[in-house]
Amino acid sequence: MTGGSVGDVVTRYHTLQTPLHLESGAVLNDIVIAYEQYGCSPAHGNTILVCHALSGDAHAAGMHKGDKHPGWWDGVIGPGKALDTDRYCIIATNVIGGCKGSTGPAAINPDTKLPYGPDFPVITIRDMVAAQHTFLIEQEIHDLYAVVGGSMGGMQSLQWSVEYPGFARRIVVIAAAGYSTPMHIAFGAVGRAAIMTDPAWKGGRYSADEKPDRGLSLARMMAHITYLSDQSMHKKFGRRLQEKTEYGYGFETEFSVESYLKHQGRSFVQRFDPNSYLYITKAIDYYDLTKNGSLSEGLKETDAKFLILSVSTDWLYPPYLSEEIVMALNSIGKDVQYTEVMSGFGHDGFLLEDDQMNYLIGRFLTPLTVADIMIRDPPTIRGCATIRAAAATMIEREVNHLPVLHADGTLCGIVTSWDIAKAVAGEHTMLDEIMTKNVLSVSADATLRDAAKILDKYHISALPVVGQGKVVGMLTSEQLSHIAERR
Amino acid sequence: MTGGSVGDVVTRYHTLQTPLHLESGAVLNDIVIAYEQYGCSPAHGNTILVCHALSGDAHAAGMHKGDKHPGWWDGVIGPGKALDTDRYCIIATNVIGGCKGSTGPAAINPDTKLPYGPDFPVITIRDMVAAQHTFLIEQEIHDLYAVVGGSMGGMQSLQWSVEYPGFARRIVVIAAAGYSTPMHIAFGAVGRAAIMTDPAWKGGRYSADEKPDRGLSLARMMAHITYLSDQSMHKKFGRRLQEKTEYGYGFETEFSVESYLKHQGRSFVQRFDPNSYLYITKAIDYYDLTKNGSLSEGLKETDAKFLILSVSTDWLYPPYLSEEIVMALNSIGKDVQYTEVMSGFGHDGFLLEDDQMNYLIGRFLTPLTVADIMIRDPPTIRGCATIRAAAATMIEREVNHLPVLHADGTLCGIVTSWDIAKAVAGEHTMLDEIMTKNVLSVSADATLRDAAKILDKYHISALPVVGQGKVVGMLTSEQLSHIAERR
Repeated sequence: MTGGSVGDVVTRYHTLQTPLHLESGAVLNDIVIAYEQYGCSPAHGNTILVCHALSGDAHAAGMHKGDKHPGWWDGVIGPGKALDTDRYCIIATNVIGGCKGSTGPAAINPDTKLPYGPDFPVITIRDMVAAQHTFLIEQEIHDLYAVVGGSMGGMQSLQWSVEYPGFARRIVVIAAAGYSTPMHIAFGAVGRAAIMTDPAWKGGRYSADEKPDRGLSLARMMAHITYLSDQSMHKKFGRRLQEKTEYGYGFETEFSVESYLKHQGRSFVQRFDPNSYLYITKAIDYYDLTKNGSLSEGLKETDAKFLILSVSTDWLYPPYLSEEIVMALNSIGKDVQYTEVMSGFGHDGFLLEDDQMNYLIGRFLTPLTVADIMIRDPPTIRGCATIRAAAATMIEREVNHLPVLHADGTLCGIVTSWDIAKAVAGEHTMLDEIMTKNVLSVSADATLRDAAKILDKYHISALPVVGQGKVVGMLTSEQLSHIAERR
Repeated sequence: MTGGSVGDVVTRYHTLQTPLHLESGAVLNDIVIAYEQYGCSPAHGNTILVCHALSGDAHAAGMHKGDKHPGWWDGVIGPGKALDTDRYCIIATNVIGGCKGSTGPAAINPDTKLPYGPDFPVITIRDMVAAQHTFLIEQEIHDLYAVVGGSMGGMQSLQWSVEYPGFARRIVVIAAAGYSTPMHIAFGAVGRAAIMTDPAWKGGRYSADEKPDRGLSLARMMAHITYLSDQSMHKKFGRRLQEKTEYGYGFETEFSVESYLKHQGRSFVQRFDPNSYLYITKAIDYYDLTKNGSLSEGLKETDAKFLILSVSTDWLYPPYLSEEIVMALNSIGKDVQYTEVMSGFGHDGFLLEDDQMNYLIGRFLTPLTVADIMIRDPPTIRGCATIRAAAATMIEREVNHLPVLHADGTLCGIVTSWDIAKAVAGEHTMLDEIMTKNVLSVSADATLRDAAKILDKYHISALPVVGQGKVVGMLTSEQLSHIAERR
């Protein structure tokens, strides 16, 4: 699947009118939510919320003026893509606790007029979702077509289904889990220790020109390893040296993989606030949708259709964690689909496997319609034509079904090669004598499921597709069977 | 397999008389090798060298006076254990570059009388092994029964087979690889960055009372995660909190796994030199036994029997890395055995699965003998006994074969229940009339393979085991088939 771009976009800001009561008991006032919106205007049931991962932001698609790269999920958001801006209104917000425009520890505390720093309250995934919910309500959006997210975005997505059952009709959870595992907590703890033991951290009250960059950079380098797979590292780096051919027998950076990680660390400190890193990783550690040790019990009140996706080589959020969600939902009779995406990219696969994501998420969000697979502008013939002319058209255009049109272009019948054979046997010459009249037809926006029902019920092998009285396409049972094989 | 302890031990020190020419081109003089020795005195072909992992040392077994815990591989070294001190001389040395008694960056440079610090030359796994080789030669040990090691110890073991073909007759490589992967290099690089970005590191010239402990502690915490498995962390920690029951919504240590890792970090800085950590991880990064991209080519000159072991849940040195060694050795016709040890412990499994390690390494080093499985002190009967007495003994002792002895206790024949049946049919009463004379026997120290050959060749189902003319045991084909099933 290819698709277009949403073009130039800007991040907008909304200040919540409602105070947010956090899971910790603290209350946050005047929360700013940074957000971006793409595609259709929001309307009843057409809005999709996109949730980002640890280091993501509200800039999910399109270009910011002057930037070289588009938003973080541009491959999946846009006209004709899975999150189809021709059909839906797509909204992405930055999480609270973050540092990309939404209120977080680097923001100014309205009470003190100073940055919150370590006084910012600890937030949870539930709090992030509660802020998104308040934001949507204040934007007069009272339901969602879907919530979609990967990694920490997938946690938010699943948390949405628990906190606001029925608000979102579809939930897409990619490369995530129903709770954080001890390994997640372990990596989170080491990342935080790297920042908090950096003398520049100063208890969280660092100055803008002397931040705990060493600690944040270390945290990012380590975390980055967990986003890759053994396989992808073999492929991407192997044991290659960076800009040299022989070992230096010293401690300078020399392997490509070292150089890459150090670059990741250095560039991350340019764009991320160390305190935000603490708050967000802590929110991940706390994430746990089990209730009395049971994920089924935790998901009991959900009311949505679920799509759960995992990545085959993801060892940070291995497929078994997604399968636990699927099993929990199945055990309580919820509507859930699951696919393990085959990819060598590890956890990062959810951001890199655009084709598979577009196909799987696209089919879940937007079931195929007749328009998606019909033969467009099929050959037709006028009712006054001779049988010989109809036969000639069939042979030339290699079709077996030929819609027959009135002089004004509307459908008056259909003729098949079988009819031609009958005509030869019966010595007819004019089409009008042999064609089938009162033909069944289907509209282009009917779902394939509905079209298939008609073909089945009447034992026919092709349907003209009619729009505004005119024949705009043909749908054959052969095409439908190809689709069935692909799914 | 259980076994005894080697008891109280001390670390000894040997100064190499020979300068060591390193892979980097540098030369090290007056290298001290810290070592321990257990069991028999070294003699031709009875000595086993044990190689340690990153943070290990020469204290592999037994107790240091005043210590609470024995050496790091006490479960596998000792009388009756796989590295059987009743049979072998076991030697363990500390690697050069280390900080447990062998010369490393914290040692005094004989040229300057000051600590080497960052002036210590970068060493490689090959250099570690070369130092061990020189040490053994200076100890007048000119061959080895085996070299055994796990993780970085496995690298040394395999490197031994390449550098000194034929010196060691057996090579045991556990939870290791034929080269370091980009993921190993990545984790190594982040660990070193943690130390080298700690302001207390001071270019490697830190003082004894202000070491880069924060950096070393971070490096250890991160590395420790890689030694565990997802599964073992679920089991050991789950999402349990440490000494509390509710979330604190702050950044204090609160999950058990956090507390454990921080403890690991804190205790590591008490016992390890930060510069040594740099040198040893760098040696691991450089480790690569492939030649022209081929491990087979790199291992071509080896001349030993190999045992390769991997741990099923080890994601740092996954089984595929061991299998690559096995395939390389197989492809060039070398003698290699391989087992994937089923264990939930991850990489640490090689230190924790004592029973499996004892069984697998023990059988490789010391093939089973008749003495290991024979029925000891089996029931016997005198040649002058009646058939009825023989039958009564068989029934009472539940055996089917009864060695028949002369008055002086030496073997004169054997009688079976089948003979008894024949006797009843033929109306005999005395044993002498029906027993089989000229009985085949086997000695207790024959290998099971040799005993099995006799049973097979003569189509018999039991063999008396004879020592110094007396019957000391019985070996049955039933026992042998049990062993075959176990292997």
